[in-house]
Amino acid sequence: MKRLDEAMEKAGAEAYVIYASSRDPDMRYLTEFVTSDPLFYIKKRGRDGVLIVPQMEIGRAQEEASCDAVTRGDAGFFTYLEEEVNPCRAAARMVYEYVGGDIIVPGTFPLGVAEEIRSFCRVTVDPGTVEGMRAIKGPRERDAIRTTQEKTNEVMALAEEIIRTATVREGDLWYAGAPLTSDALRREMHCWLLRHGCTAHDTIVSCGPETAQPHNAGSGTLREDEPILIDIFPQDEKSGYFADMTRTFVKGEPTPELQEIYETVRDGQTLAEEMIRPGITGAEVHNAVLDLFNERGYETGDEGFIHSLGHGVGLQIHEAPSLSPRGDEPLMAGHVVTVEPGLYYRKTGGVRLEDLGVITKDGFVCYTKYERRLIV
Amino acid sequence: MKRLDEAMEKAGAEAYVIYASSRDPDMRYLTEFVTSDPLFYIKKRGRDGVLIVPQMEIGRAQEEASCDAVTRGDAGFFTYLEEEVNPCRAAARMVYEYVGGDIIVPGTFPLGVAEEIRSFCRVTVDPGTVEGMRAIKGPRERDAIRTTQEKTNEVMALAEEIIRTATVREGDLWYAGAPLTSDALRREMHCWLLRHGCTAHDTIVSCGPETAQPHNAGSGTLREDEPILIDIFPQDEKSGYFADMTRTFVKGEPTPELQEIYETVRDGQTLAEEMIRPGITGAEVHNAVLDLFNERGYETGDEGFIHSLGHGVGLQIHEAPSLSPRGDEPLMAGHVVTVEPGLYYRKTGGVRLEDLGVITKDGFVCYTKYERRLIV
Repeated sequence: MKRLDEAMEKAGAEAYVIYASSRDPDMRYLTEFVTSDPLFYIKKRGRDGVLIVPQMEIGRAQEEASCDAVTRGDAGFFTYLEEEVNPCRAAARMVYEYVGGDIIVPGTFPLGVAEEIRSFCRVTVDPGTVEGMRAIKGPRERDAIRTTQEKTNEVMALAEEIIRTATVREGDLWYAGAPLTSDALRREMHCWLLRHGCTAHDTIVSCGPETAQPHNAGSGTLREDEPILIDIFPQDEKSGYFADMTRTFVKGEPTPELQEIYETVRDGQTLAEEMIRPGITGAEVHNAVLDLFNERGYETGDEGFIHSLGHGVGLQIHEAPSLSPRGDEPLMAGHVVTVEPGLYYRKTGGVRLEDLGVITKDGFVCYTKYERRLIV
Repeated sequence: MKRLDEAMEKAGAEAYVIYASSRDPDMRYLTEFVTSDPLFYIKKRGRDGVLIVPQMEIGRAQEEASCDAVTRGDAGFFTYLEEEVNPCRAAARMVYEYVGGDIIVPGTFPLGVAEEIRSFCRVTVDPGTVEGMRAIKGPRERDAIRTTQEKTNEVMALAEEIIRTATVREGDLWYAGAPLTSDALRREMHCWLLRHGCTAHDTIVSCGPETAQPHNAGSGTLREDEPILIDIFPQDEKSGYFADMTRTFVKGEPTPELQEIYETVRDGQTLAEEMIRPGITGAEVHNAVLDLFNERGYETGDEGFIHSLGHGVGLQIHEAPSLSPRGDEPLMAGHVVTVEPGLYYRKTGGVRLEDLGVITKDGFVCYTKYERRLIV
């Protein structure tokens, strides 16, 4: 929290303020309080942070939040509401009166609320101090992410097993007496995760030509001899920490072209995981993989390696640092990152392999314990 | 979309701009495109809206979005990036150059992005035009919400059935050979919903003293003779529309006090559903229920009826209109709202009953087909 105090000092502000639900990773990081509705969190310079909650949430907040909590009534909201009439303005005044000076806020802070507060004091955008704090994971956070990744490994094994034991009718995969669709496989995975305390959204189970679009969620029945790309990023319900993993499979026989792409992507991933260490930049690692692909004849334009090599993972699925051509900051011990090269061609289909791990002083320690094998 | 054009005209702006993922209900409403990462949506005055996406998303956006889509490359992003260096500033310039004038944005627009755009043009907060458009549901939206509610009715029946068939050992409920915990029941419900194309988060399954806190998620083993409060609000994955439902059960024998509270809450709910019609305000309905509770001797301070009577439901779980002491706007045909009175006392526990329905010219048409019965 010293870094937040320094950010306030630098900006000449008296407090750091968030207005968000716990879907906002900064909010969850600073309060550990789960809420669907947005709340104010205020940390005055040199003091502990405080969450301002409706009366009905105070008991829960005092039990569950990692910071102090007061009711908005006790923070004067209803008194100001009498005078200001407009609830948004009353909330803005409550923040100002509580702080008694200028504030800094994250870049995600809602403009509408900022404008109201600006009629009382100066509101400056903080350049990502909390995001920076979040990027370096402490031991408890690493454990949480590794735990989520362990469940992710298991659910990927379940998916692979379903594909393996599926039967084939006229090229379509069948399972449990019905065609095995993207939706069906996704739901099996999601249910397994739920039973193990995780939720997953927007899981990709794409097949055939769909795999050439990296973020195509997939639809319809899975097919023999075609690439099946599974990208799943569950969040642990209790801890809030994500994991992230991708594998590409073929049931039956891949084309020689796809086989070669698979091996190239796998080699790119191995290269990247060997290069990653504190001090190297994300751009250097990304470009090394891009060079390897180029050397092997896989060029990148509107097809090819058309996304970033990786990203940080924590309370947010995509967070700092970035392993991309623009990732100019050196990687640091404590960063938890994905390594996910991919090659996508409309003619052949797409392959992506994604591991997750932590950067230590000795290099990349992979949390993803899962073989890389195309044919199931 | 005429209302958006009018809002631009009133503000002297050339375009309406959002920067959000599809978790943002305005974004989902205007684009119908599902994305985890934030994107720009720009609607110029008198023109159709356009989504600006990374190269890797363009194929999917052109297939799945209800509006046009262009790549950020085609929108000039990489050219501006050469000149501006800072990607956030380059994106801001891309927006400005595309619009060629001042813009309006929703109140949720991120301050950090707004500040960058402000170095090019004026950025004004729109007072909730899209939220207003979303509040009135068309036939397709009503169908979507009713469909989600139908699944919610079914999953509540599943939960009730599990409680009914549970056995009792020393006051604890047991099911399938294990203590029936909040977590276990929640997961059964979530899995059923997943298999039926819905996801649910933060579902409340609270028991005993926990029920006195309206938003306590619940933990531990469910108990005989104590209130069990289940509040579930699933979202349909395909349509994005929510439903919302609460029931309170006792397995075994409730105290006479709880029984009386239940009947009072039920009567309050009936009264509200009978009163709701176009033209009445949310405050009038809320206060009528509050009065009924007072007449019956259930007073409200820091205990009692300590939350709002209801709220709109759509692509967001809590949206306009508000059925609360501050809901001064008249209700309108096409509003889809919850009716969820509750009474909460630390000594007795809490009871909440929540229905969902649409307001038509004839009154409230309830989508929740579910008996109100305390004892299972």
